[in-house]
Amino acid sequence: MEQRPDERGTARWSRRALLTGGGAGVVAALAGAGRAARAEPTNAVPPWMRAPGGPDEEYGRPSTYEAHVRRVRRPAPPERAVMSSWRTPLEHQRGIITPSGLHFSVHHNGVPAIDPSAHRLMVHGMVERPLRWDLEQLLRYPMVSRIHFLECAGNTGANAVMPMPLQAGCQELFGEVSCSEWTGVPLRVLLEEAGLKPGASWVVAEGADGGSHARSLPLKKLLDDAMVALFQNGERLRPSQGYPVRLLVPGWEGNVNVKWLHRLEVSDRPAFTKDESGMYTQILEDGRLERFAFTMEVKSVITRPSGGQLTAPPGRPTEIAGLAWSGRGKIARVDVSVDGGTTWHPATLGGPVLDRAFTTFSLPWTWDGKPALLLSRAEDEHGVVQPSRSRWKARYAAHSYNHYNAIQAWAVGADGTVENRYA
Amino acid sequence: MEQRPDERGTARWSRRALLTGGGAGVVAALAGAGRAARAEPTNAVPPWMRAPGGPDEEYGRPSTYEAHVRRVRRPAPPERAVMSSWRTPLEHQRGIITPSGLHFSVHHNGVPAIDPSAHRLMVHGMVERPLRWDLEQLLRYPMVSRIHFLECAGNTGANAVMPMPLQAGCQELFGEVSCSEWTGVPLRVLLEEAGLKPGASWVVAEGADGGSHARSLPLKKLLDDAMVALFQNGERLRPSQGYPVRLLVPGWEGNVNVKWLHRLEVSDRPAFTKDESGMYTQILEDGRLERFAFTMEVKSVITRPSGGQLTAPPGRPTEIAGLAWSGRGKIARVDVSVDGGTTWHPATLGGPVLDRAFTTFSLPWTWDGKPALLLSRAEDEHGVVQPSRSRWKARYAAHSYNHYNAIQAWAVGADGTVENRYA
Repeated sequence: MEQRPDERGTARWSRRALLTGGGAGVVAALAGAGRAARAEPTNAVPPWMRAPGGPDEEYGRPSTYEAHVRRVRRPAPPERAVMSSWRTPLEHQRGIITPSGLHFSVHHNGVPAIDPSAHRLMVHGMVERPLRWDLEQLLRYPMVSRIHFLECAGNTGANAVMPMPLQAGCQELFGEVSCSEWTGVPLRVLLEEAGLKPGASWVVAEGADGGSHARSLPLKKLLDDAMVALFQNGERLRPSQGYPVRLLVPGWEGNVNVKWLHRLEVSDRPAFTKDESGMYTQILEDGRLERFAFTMEVKSVITRPSGGQLTAPPGRPTEIAGLAWSGRGKIARVDVSVDGGTTWHPATLGGPVLDRAFTTFSLPWTWDGKPALLLSRAEDEHGVVQPSRSRWKARYAAHSYNHYNAIQAWAVGADGTVENRYA
Repeated sequence: MEQRPDERGTARWSRRALLTGGGAGVVAALAGAGRAARAEPTNAVPPWMRAPGGPDEEYGRPSTYEAHVRRVRRPAPPERAVMSSWRTPLEHQRGIITPSGLHFSVHHNGVPAIDPSAHRLMVHGMVERPLRWDLEQLLRYPMVSRIHFLECAGNTGANAVMPMPLQAGCQELFGEVSCSEWTGVPLRVLLEEAGLKPGASWVVAEGADGGSHARSLPLKKLLDDAMVALFQNGERLRPSQGYPVRLLVPGWEGNVNVKWLHRLEVSDRPAFTKDESGMYTQILEDGRLERFAFTMEVKSVITRPSGGQLTAPPGRPTEIAGLAWSGRGKIARVDVSVDGGTTWHPATLGGPVLDRAFTTFSLPWTWDGKPALLLSRAEDEHGVVQPSRSRWKARYAAHSYNHYNAIQAWAVGADGTVENRYA
């Protein structure tokens, strides 16, 4: 394999190269089956220029021509389990903000329909003054806003456990990660108001869903940067994201960002709830348990081209583009390889590059028509780099799948098809 | 008036002060009439904790309890004019991102229902090679992402022209400004591909709406930082925002960010289209015309408390919070006065502080129960400061209203009501 990216800074976006060579295939694959029929292929004045347009809406919606851009549920219906994963179509996202309507959700007990006027948040346990707030009270506190990714601990787990690579796209394989602007009350303010007793070191956070999803979290982290989030992307949380209030624990695995938050119990030890003793405890290669491994490590994925797409035809300049993130801080660099890791090329990071947020990256590339193997390898500001799949697998038991963050490989076939590959 | 904000850094959010004193009035005013009845005022386990929740959605929506947070149309229905303004409920926004469904829109000819497969973007005029792209072709180009505000030239115009202050809230008075992450192709790339002829200095941008909204723009600015935007907040533009493609001209008045963009004519002079000779030409105090004044100057508004709300009861710590923006760059500082401008106090800027984007600001405050006059005064990184209303008015003819950016005053009455005031 001798694929080489274009020399940095010298790539020219030649119209001839871009617009010839049967390139319609790429976008057809992106647009999918939801696309409407072509209306007017000629120079004729289209109908929408011959008359005034229609009214707008009080709450706007996407174009009906974009109806194929939607979350998918896994397991797919008619599976009746209350646990469900609704995944973000990352291959359609450009930029760092995920639309709230497309933000991933993993529900352990479905989505409760909470009346905010009847919802309460309680702080109790090892505190001087057990306290309870209703929403009207919480909304009076000063708030902070932060742009952060959220990722399910199990995101990309299929690549960890399946003997052969699952042939699927970004949404199916990587879609349990999204990024939003979150606004809420620093949890420190509420805990200090309750008054922490000596020895307090853990907090059990519980949701008001039917299964009372609960996780134990170290007090130190919660005092540092956690928030009681009330807003997402400028508006109140949506039911799917914990309306009316959720915990937001920047950089830590999704399920500890407890949705529909209603109780915080301060303690001197973890509670070993069902949600942390079972599903979110990881088994190491030697059989020992890795408990309370909260941080989502540095990770990246090439979204264009990616699984299920067609790459641009040979000889046509295109770009390799994707998303990177780290639960430890900012992304420092992303390197991209088109030859399976023999050579690496620094990608350009798009702005803004924010702490524990999606960061976009891109690299110009012209495919030569031969099989290629595309990798992206992110490094965060602390020098932590994504591992290879074999290095990740060596650490964990064969069936462990949480916190999988190995380098993703997309194989480009001689026909331009893109497939999931273990590299 | 002797209102004084809390000493910086020493404000304590006393629970007793926050939660007593009949404070429910503030939030009741915020929540509005759309609020559902209170379901369970007691400690009883609510129904949503007794059973699994419901399914999620492929494309999420806000809670039905937040249905009052919506855009309002001005002129209000049943006004039949095709020109309409749909305004953002800024008093409900927290953070810098406006949800796409709540982003303001001013439509000169309604919203065209464009089939993207039949839409074309053309570059012609003083170019070496007239070019035309369909959407499939445009989507192949490398893109950039930027978080920028958009503001209608006429936003807040009521305060410029009405002899007495219109008694209305942020949405009605200030709601023609919003902020999103925009992603698209740098216009420079497309223009350079077409090849600019010597002497080219202006570009006429035209939309594919029924009225062919068109504006002339200096080529220099377009080559500098304009983009052909295809995505907003991570998904394709919505019809209301120009689907499938709009022009994005950072920091410049909304109407030059031509929606439904289909034609760019390169020229050596402006075209003096109906849209720029009429509505968007401003008349100065001495009768001369101010043409092509594109930049939206530095501006701010306190959103909490603001017109139509009740401020927090006397003696209860609260915060004065709002949004600031400048079409020239980053916000450098915002000062807040609670005594009508006699004394000023630096507000805290929330992060991130980005170029030509909304920036949040806040200041702790405890009202003493006497009439107060709240002002916010923003300054951008170039040292440009918002003018007083009288200074702004001195520059323009009495009926001029575009680009009004004077300091906004909210008067707090002895009963806690907040009113629009000229200060």
